Amino acid sequence: MSKSRLTYAMVGGGKGSFIGPVHRMAIRMDDLADLVAGCFSRDAAGNAATGAELGVSPERIYQDWRSLIAAESGKIDFLAVCTPNDSHYPIAKAALEAGVNVMCEKPLSISSEEALELERLARRKKLVLGVPFTYSGYPMVKLARDLVRSGELGKICKVLMEYQQGSFRKIDFSKPLDKRNAWKMDPRRSGRSCVVADIGVHGAHLIEYVTGLEIRQIAADLSSFAPGNRLDDDASILMKLSKGAKAVMVTSKIATGEENGLRLRVYGDKASLVWQVEEGNYLHVKYAFGPERTYKRNAPYIAGLSEVSKRCSRIPAGHHEGFIEAFANHYREFCAALRGGRNCDFPQAREGRRTIQFVDAALKSASEGSSWVKLA
Amino acid sequence: MSKSRLTYAMVGGGKGSFIGPVHRMAIRMDDLADLVAGCFSRDAAGNAATGAELGVSPERIYQDWRSLIAAESGKIDFLAVCTPNDSHYPIAKAALEAGVNVMCEKPLSISSEEALELERLARRKKLVLGVPFTYSGYPMVKLARDLVRSGELGKICKVLMEYQQGSFRKIDFSKPLDKRNAWKMDPRRSGRSCVVADIGVHGAHLIEYVTGLEIRQIAADLSSFAPGNRLDDDASILMKLSKGAKAVMVTSKIATGEENGLRLRVYGDKASLVWQVEEGNYLHVKYAFGPERTYKRNAPYIAGLSEVSKRCSRIPAGHHEGFIEAFANHYREFCAALRGGRNCDFPQAREGRRTIQFVDAALKSASEGSSWVKLA
Amino acid sequence: MSKSRLTYAMVGGGKGSFIGPVHRMAIRMDDLADLVAGCFSRDAAGNAATGAELGVSPERIYQDWRSLIAAESGKIDFLAVCTPNDSHYPIAKAALEAGVNVMCEKPLSISSEEALELERLARRKKLVLGVPFTYSGYPMVKLARDLVRSGELGKICKVLMEYQQGSFRKIDFSKPLDKRNAWKMDPRRSGRSCVVADIGVHGAHLIEYVTGLEIRQIAADLSSFAPGNRLDDDASILMKLSKGAKAVMVTSKIATGEENGLRLRVYGDKASLVWQVEEGNYLHVKYAFGPERTYKRNAPYIAGLSEVSKRCSRIPAGHHEGFIEAFANHYREFCAALRGGRNCDFPQAREGRRTIQFVDAALKSASEGSSWVKLA
Amino acid sequence: MSKSRLTYAMVGGGKGSFIGPVHRMAIRMDDLADLVAGCFSRDAAGNAATGAELGVSPERIYQDWRSLIAAESGKIDFLAVCTPNDSHYPIAKAALEAGVNVMCEKPLSISSEEALELERLARRKKLVLGVPFTYSGYPMVKLARDLVRSGELGKICKVLMEYQQGSFRKIDFSKPLDKRNAWKMDPRRSGRSCVVADIGVHGAHLIEYVTGLEIRQIAADLSSFAPGNRLDDDASILMKLSKGAKAVMVTSKIATGEENGLRLRVYGDKASLVWQVEEGNYLHVKYAFGPERTYKRNAPYIAGLSEVSKRCSRIPAGHHEGFIEAFANHYREFCAALRGGRNCDFPQAREGRRTIQFVDAALKSASEGSSWVKLA
Repeated sequence: MSKSRLTYAMVGGGKGSFIGPVHRMAIRMDDLADLVAGCFSRDAAGNAATGAELGVSPERIYQDWRSLIAAESGKIDFLAVCTPNDSHYPIAKAALEAGVNVMCEKPLSISSEEALELERLARRKKLVLGVPFTYSGYPMVKLARDLVRSGELGKICKVLMEYQQGSFRKIDFSKPLDKRNAWKMDPRRSGRSCVVADIGVHGAHLIEYVTGLEIRQIAADLSSFAPGNRLDDDASILMKLSKGAKAVMVTSKIATGEENGLRLRVYGDKASLVWQVEEGNYLHVKYAFGPERTYKRNAPYIAGLSEVSKRCSRIPAGHHEGFIEAFANHYREFCAALRGGRNCDFPQAREGRRTIQFVDAALKSASEGSSWVKLA
Repeated sequence: MSKSRLTYAMVGGGKGSFIGPVHRMAIRMDDLADLVAGCFSRDAAGNAATGAELGVSPERIYQDWRSLIAAESGKIDFLAVCTPNDSHYPIAKAALEAGVNVMCEKPLSISSEEALELERLARRKKLVLGVPFTYSGYPMVKLARDLVRSGELGKICKVLMEYQQGSFRKIDFSKPLDKRNAWKMDPRRSGRSCVVADIGVHGAHLIEYVTGLEIRQIAADLSSFAPGNRLDDDASILMKLSKGAKAVMVTSKIATGEENGLRLRVYGDKASLVWQVEEGNYLHVKYAFGPERTYKRNAPYIAGLSEVSKRCSRIPAGHHEGFIEAFANHYREFCAALRGGRNCDFPQAREGRRTIQFVDAALKSASEGSSWVKLA
Repeated sequence: MSKSRLTYAMVGGGKGSFIGPVHRMAIRMDDLADLVAGCFSRDAAGNAATGAELGVSPERIYQDWRSLIAAESGKIDFLAVCTPNDSHYPIAKAALEAGVNVMCEKPLSISSEEALELERLARRKKLVLGVPFTYSGYPMVKLARDLVRSGELGKICKVLMEYQQGSFRKIDFSKPLDKRNAWKMDPRRSGRSCVVADIGVHGAHLIEYVTGLEIRQIAADLSSFAPGNRLDDDASILMKLSKGAKAVMVTSKIATGEENGLRLRVYGDKASLVWQVEEGNYLHVKYAFGPERTYKRNAPYIAGLSEVSKRCSRIPAGHHEGFIEAFANHYREFCAALRGGRNCDFPQAREGRRTIQFVDAALKSASEGSSWVKLA
Repeated sequence: MSKSRLTYAMVGGGKGSFIGPVHRMAIRMDDLADLVAGCFSRDAAGNAATGAELGVSPERIYQDWRSLIAAESGKIDFLAVCTPNDSHYPIAKAALEAGVNVMCEKPLSISSEEALELERLARRKKLVLGVPFTYSGYPMVKLARDLVRSGELGKICKVLMEYQQGSFRKIDFSKPLDKRNAWKMDPRRSGRSCVVADIGVHGAHLIEYVTGLEIRQIAADLSSFAPGNRLDDDASILMKLSKGAKAVMVTSKIATGEENGLRLRVYGDKASLVWQVEEGNYLHVKYAFGPERTYKRNAPYIAGLSEVSKRCSRIPAGHHEGFIEAFANHYREFCAALRGGRNCDFPQAREGRRTIQFVDAALKSASEGSSWVKLA
């Protein structure tokens, strides 16, 4: 890295946040940038406390994000947006308009129109707008993408995507919901979708990232199983991809006992692959006429197959890297882009927008009895 | 077993057959019945050779199944039907009409009407008509069913069924197809469906067997990916089950590198379970608030949870039983029923008919753009 | 098989026996031979009942094995010996002397001298004396052996063998022991060793079978952890093999919660392999410079790597075969040998004798403070 | 953490180092301390370059560690020692004598005497001397320890420890060795042992950490398989632990295809456990009379079983933490101790010394034909 260090501000990520600390640890692990300003919580005391804990100067802790952007524009290299869904769009928009690069949590916005607007805005302002879909940051996912690209799997025919969580089964519904679950079930904070917007977007992104195909049409069946939940917490989605491929996604918040059950399978006419996050340091490739192969993160032969997979590893095979490291890979590539790097490999506005179009199509299909709906 | 041994005849199961030998090994392993007559092949020489190899007296080897039924009715305890799909119905019908109990390979027939007719015929004649859906013969599937019944999983919300094979990827399409694949792709022998009728029926049966719920409506997307194939070789199916539950099935013959990838997951509001045939001696149960549990076939605690799971095991935990043993379990229960046993646990005409209704609904839905179709 | 069927008699295998029924199911599954005579139990009523249940004519059910051998010699093709350890030697000896081929349960005898005597006796009488060490009957173990032979692993340096059972932890020691455990802990029935003689012999056999190397010297630490047990129920054994290789075996009856935890790892200078019985349909091969490979039983590519592995499979990959099938493979090869076949692949007197020498060396080493002891 | 930040210096960890960057990432991830001084390499240019890259002021980059300690004593909170084995002792000794807390890579020293001296020195000076044996930093290892402590496993009888690497199989011995491998095979840099001192010490530490028992006597068989290697690169070690328990360790650098195959199994008379680093977010517990249980890192029920396991997790179950996070846990506890915390859970001088005594005993036993040798 260069001698002149990068600096950033954060909106959200106060006490009780899951993803805010992940951004900070990911950035810190590789020492990519210093946190110099923030608006961590709408609660003034909590905001101050988090800032102090993180070593942010009191004068750069702001009571609202508008003040932060106004005051910090020109002083920081980027803004990390870690708030609930409903404020992603206005914050990202304001930051971009003020000339600030943004790393914005998914979903990028509540509607496709907003996402498209942000994508265009970033392009026009020549700013970087990243959306850290963690899973494409895993080295073995990058290897998967590169194996598909190289033709190792042949023509892709079918994709299976599953992302099963049981988080809504850990809630005691006889008590008030905790903060994190409360906003996810609240249409005002979460938007019109819960499970599809929260984790289905990861699945949609991964399908397009790994296969290089586009999701063209989907037919969705959405359900609400958790007590009192008005948004979707379980989804089953059929897909037609470009080049005649098909796909299926299942995703859930009510899959009791599942922690973070993300698994991707891609079937080509020459070979197939399977990657699952809970064994994320491995990638399996299966053949009709030969033994199954298990590739291992950062093993000696990886570099020859995927330069970016190698580049996104820190420690030797067998010593596992996990979620935070994958997240950090996105930040490494994002920071490289900030410094003018080319071919940096991380999800940006386009990927953010594609996944919102996916959410919109899922909602439309579900409202029409699982009819086939084209992505805008 | 009783002193007086049972006897049976077989139609089909000649040279090159996969399932015929499985029936014979399954029956033999537990010494349930003696094979005394057969019509193993339409090829006279092959028919005679198979009969001789199996120790069947030449005078009880028949050139066609009609002669066999005519001659053997009253002399055998049951007929095993192991022919391609198109002849299941006429053979089973003729045997039942002649008063012969039948174990008939799946799919029970080509159409729902035929299946319903066979079901009624068996009931009217007070005969046993078994359909050996292998997977419900696995002791751990029986345990799964009994755990669901006992309420361990709570209310069932979602079911995921996958049955992925890559058999059509092992074919060299530049050469004439071998016998086994040829008939599976031939609408005249296989019926109107390939993958759904061949293995999707296993999935449909397992869902209903384990959950005790009924498949009510389905929306199917069927594809034909194998070169020259006119029937479905890949299917993605959404389902609405009774009591508000949902399900998804994916099944394929073109899943390169998959051997027999059957996996069932059942999510209740208290716990969930997963069983996969390639680790068939284990059953996993997951909880929101406690560690995952792995049950092992015939472990000391099984009997207290599922008497039938215990009954369907031969050897201690850790010494694995597989496909043939599961098949044999169905024959054990079938033979017990022939001897007048009650509460015998094996799939019968009803299960055979339900799965054909599933196939019919899948074909109808696919022809209507994946519309929701009720099972007849 | 030939038209003229084989026949056999069994000693042992009465009510409560684990291994007797396995012999019978294994033989029956492939319809290799008919059980025509037996002495199943020293308890007259039980003996008669078992015989009746198995369809043996009352006049061919004997009160003692000596009478059986005297009466059946010349009438049967072989004798299956399924009694506790102490009577293996006298029964096998008497049968061989009477000209009867024998399949004798392990351990072949209580002492190396007895084993050597049986080996010489069989050779002199030109009779077949098989010892069904189940695990070398698994198709993937045969593939492992053939991969080593082909040089795929390079020069073998290190072997890890583990065989962990928890059976003695399932015993309620406050009550009288059941029959099966009682004799295993009784030096008069079991011999001077428990765990090494009962399951350690499987491990010793597998090491020599798969690597083609000989166990030359061992240093053993034996323990007795089960309450009241005077024989070894846990063993840790260092080994020096031929050609400079080393090995370690751990085996136990007190490994709480283990069912049948047998795992073999072989490290060569080019590649290594791992096979474990609880995932017995797979074989893993690992390389320094390429992805791990997982071979699957009876997959299309197996025949080209190991003809015998292919020959010892019945059903397609993905449809699992288990313990009984592996056992049956030994009987298939044994019966082929009875019919004059050559290069039949099953463990015989030599393998039986080698493993007894291993037991003797382990006992000697343990009595000398884990000193290195040569195999006789 | 407190407002006043900690600072540290590093010796070693220059270009090509594996463990130096791990220390830095681990410290940085949780933002525990700032690197302010260093002596990263004996090569002056490399030293300067690494320092610059890490943002260390040029005046605090030192040409030798003695100068660093002399100049920085009193200015830094601790020194991280990441050099090859031979310099651990002199550096740690000098730092402690100068009043500097130390985190010193394993092995703590080349001989037991040196280790004992360091332990006493740290105690006398009331300084903290940590030795970051990574694996006891894994949350599931801490849970394992706490389950054993709670009596869940009953009386511990047997422990199996394996740590298999294939790193010496990735070397092209026809070329000069790279730096990292060269010193590991060089008795002047590595000490008298290679594999036991390098990774066997992790195993010895884990056994004592998890079981709470002491290794009393060992009998070792050491081998050198890699071409030209004069030190041990493969070891098989029998152990007698306190309270009558037994153990076996196998560890290797020549286990072709293994990456970092560390697995610990502990057998008690009530239950057993298995933990392996390549599935490090899980812990399996097996019972004689109930299903196996799989505990998952940071699942809701963990806190109730092990407060420290919970404390050492950052992100939810299912989002995996790996090697760097485990390392960071040791630094968190180490830094807490620097701030006066009590009951901090990380390996210290005592653990460092115990493992060197283990190495010494292994070397002595091997030189005496695998005789039993007591740990000093």
